[in-house]
Amino acid sequence: MLKLSTSDPGFDRDFAALVNARRESDADVARDVRTIIASVRDEGDSAIAAFTKKFDHHDLNETGWRIEKTDWIAAYEGLDPALRDALELAATRIAAYHEKQKPADSDTIDSAGVRLGARWNAIQHAGIYIPGGRAAYPSSVLMNAIPAKVAGVERLVMVTPTPKGEINPLVLAAAHIAGVDEIWRVGGAQAIAALAYGTGRIAAVDVITGPGNAWVAEAKRQLYGVVGIDMVAGPSEIVVVADGRNDPEWIAADLLSQSEHDPTSQSILFTDNASFAERVADAVDLQIGQLSTARVARDSWDANGAIIVTADLMEAMPLVDRLAPEHLELACDDPQALFDRVRHAGSVFLGRHTPEAIGDYVAGPNHVLPTGRRARFASGLSVLDFMKRTSFLQCDEAALAAIGPAAVALAEAEGLPAHARSVALRLTK
Amino acid sequence: MLKLSTSDPGFDRDFAALVNARRESDADVARDVRTIIASVRDEGDSAIAAFTKKFDHHDLNETGWRIEKTDWIAAYEGLDPALRDALELAATRIAAYHEKQKPADSDTIDSAGVRLGARWNAIQHAGIYIPGGRAAYPSSVLMNAIPAKVAGVERLVMVTPTPKGEINPLVLAAAHIAGVDEIWRVGGAQAIAALAYGTGRIAAVDVITGPGNAWVAEAKRQLYGVVGIDMVAGPSEIVVVADGRNDPEWIAADLLSQSEHDPTSQSILFTDNASFAERVADAVDLQIGQLSTARVARDSWDANGAIIVTADLMEAMPLVDRLAPEHLELACDDPQALFDRVRHAGSVFLGRHTPEAIGDYVAGPNHVLPTGRRARFASGLSVLDFMKRTSFLQCDEAALAAIGPAAVALAEAEGLPAHARSVALRLTK
Repeated sequence: MLKLSTSDPGFDRDFAALVNARRESDADVARDVRTIIASVRDEGDSAIAAFTKKFDHHDLNETGWRIEKTDWIAAYEGLDPALRDALELAATRIAAYHEKQKPADSDTIDSAGVRLGARWNAIQHAGIYIPGGRAAYPSSVLMNAIPAKVAGVERLVMVTPTPKGEINPLVLAAAHIAGVDEIWRVGGAQAIAALAYGTGRIAAVDVITGPGNAWVAEAKRQLYGVVGIDMVAGPSEIVVVADGRNDPEWIAADLLSQSEHDPTSQSILFTDNASFAERVADAVDLQIGQLSTARVARDSWDANGAIIVTADLMEAMPLVDRLAPEHLELACDDPQALFDRVRHAGSVFLGRHTPEAIGDYVAGPNHVLPTGRRARFASGLSVLDFMKRTSFLQCDEAALAAIGPAAVALAEAEGLPAHARSVALRLTK
Repeated sequence: MLKLSTSDPGFDRDFAALVNARRESDADVARDVRTIIASVRDEGDSAIAAFTKKFDHHDLNETGWRIEKTDWIAAYEGLDPALRDALELAATRIAAYHEKQKPADSDTIDSAGVRLGARWNAIQHAGIYIPGGRAAYPSSVLMNAIPAKVAGVERLVMVTPTPKGEINPLVLAAAHIAGVDEIWRVGGAQAIAALAYGTGRIAAVDVITGPGNAWVAEAKRQLYGVVGIDMVAGPSEIVVVADGRNDPEWIAADLLSQSEHDPTSQSILFTDNASFAERVADAVDLQIGQLSTARVARDSWDANGAIIVTADLMEAMPLVDRLAPEHLELACDDPQALFDRVRHAGSVFLGRHTPEAIGDYVAGPNHVLPTGRRARFASGLSVLDFMKRTSFLQCDEAALAAIGPAAVALAEAEGLPAHARSVALRLTK
């Protein structure tokens, strides 16, 4: 864990190194993924079966390609009632938040008499990737599937690897609650290729979202353009800005909630109180030992954790903007004053009673957020990722007479005579 | 040019072939582009100078790296007044249309007492790529730069190759009108890499948009994630749906306005009148001979043009959706009835007096639109491409008590104890 203070003589250099440190894997999987994609495109289902046998160690023709709806319903009905209520509450709140993101159409006539507008439509077919293994989270199913269904996606396809054929019933139950339409027992780059190109069994989709390992991420990147995708995702991160009046135990738990995700995760505390910084560091050390995720959390905190002491909390804000964190907690009495200074962050958690984890599950906003400083240019997953906009315009004779001559002049200046003629012919009649 | 009729026995097969035909270059430029990107990242300005000498045949240290603002102003002031007025009208109308795209922030408190919201901010630094040579269009400058400036981008950087040092004064004038902040005499994949990573001279940006050749497109694709980019662009296309009461000369000009762009462009007419189809085909042949762009238009029309006769216009609409065209003209008396059936199209031009070219220049909607069937999942360039959204939430003790237990239950079920603890600690106090 790195300790810095803005009053250190080498602070600028050390902080710049922290900002620019790359935690993302450099694994060169591009060539393997190209091979997998080409095989699936050319050979379809037989390539899918072969890669599944190789990587997931089961035979799709024995385990079954699709997971049947009766299985999801059984998983849903078999849930512990408290857990089912928790999933239902989360789903309801996520749907309510995303419902408000639905964009409005426009259709107006301007002073030149030109009708101008934009119409939004849902993507027709969407796919979501849900990892198997450690990161098989029902909350990921809800966060990817619900915005798609709120948008109006007609066919929502989930793909998920089932190593040795096993699948997490919580994931199935979440898919049932979220309204997924199909689930396929396929993972890895081959699943992304199947969704992008379609195979004999699996019909193609138009957009693919959802988390995955380096192969999945690279497959999405390579197929970007063939299909739409959500943002390229990297390791998770949290920045907490906290004054000395917080309970150090609470802040330590917040930092660890990010560290326990993955050894590449990052947790950073800014505080204006040096002794509070020490107390949080001690509380982190104490709490780590009590976690079933201790090994991951310890690796992450040791390698990527940081505590930075500033003269006051406001001094932290431009530094936070340089980090453009995925998650930002503002734990103080007047979080709004700090929030007004935030320009680059995926999601912000205001005040002492808003731990980041509340947003991972039940608050409502999406937990799929831009990582690795991408909040400078990217947003969290939303209904807009599952919709697209068609612009439209309509001229009558008078409107075309008003604006047409300028189009003719510009088309001629650009050396495009058929453009000019298509307008000019309609001006002379 | 392909002639089809929905009454042909082989229509389904022939139309499917048309839908699936790939007009995009398969040039394998990925390796070259990887090399260029790595050189620029590692060596900065010296790599830029070397690639510019190699590809654009001039020495940046002699011609100058930046084009100075005095040069843009001179280009603007030297414009023919009619052309200046046309550019100004276009800029004003484009700005007015895009102004309405600015998204609203939200900030509400729900029934559980949870404050939930979203706040939009402009991207801070954006870059636009403007090609040199045949496609050096001032309209592209307006269509890329104005949405950025309407969004609130603080620093808008234009890069453009100047083969042998020459640049189109119309492009400079358009940059001046649109409010561009910097112009660099750099093009190709090396310009995209410079914008993404920054060099000694050129500071990095957060988002890059704008058209380009296969190298530029591949560089954007490879750097997607390091920066934000607009959609992957392919050859341009138009679909015209027209009844027999149109002037065949008008419709022929509309088809050719797409064909003249590039040999890979595509123009398709759907009509319910076979003799009108013949008259349009004849008019196309006649008009091509009169164009300064005849060679390109002829190649494109011969290779990729199509006329499809349907029983009635409504029969065309599901076929149009399968093509998901970049541009769609509906030239008939009641275009709204057809438009109501359109789901996948980049931009729609309604009625007999709305040639597509009016939208290329002065109508207001963006002319950067999804090509190659990408209207199934992508939208035209907009203010949203230059903004990003930060979600936020705030709980007080009561709100956390209402929704916190569900988060604890889900975190425990996912095996993430620090997540659970960060919420649970705040529930017991």
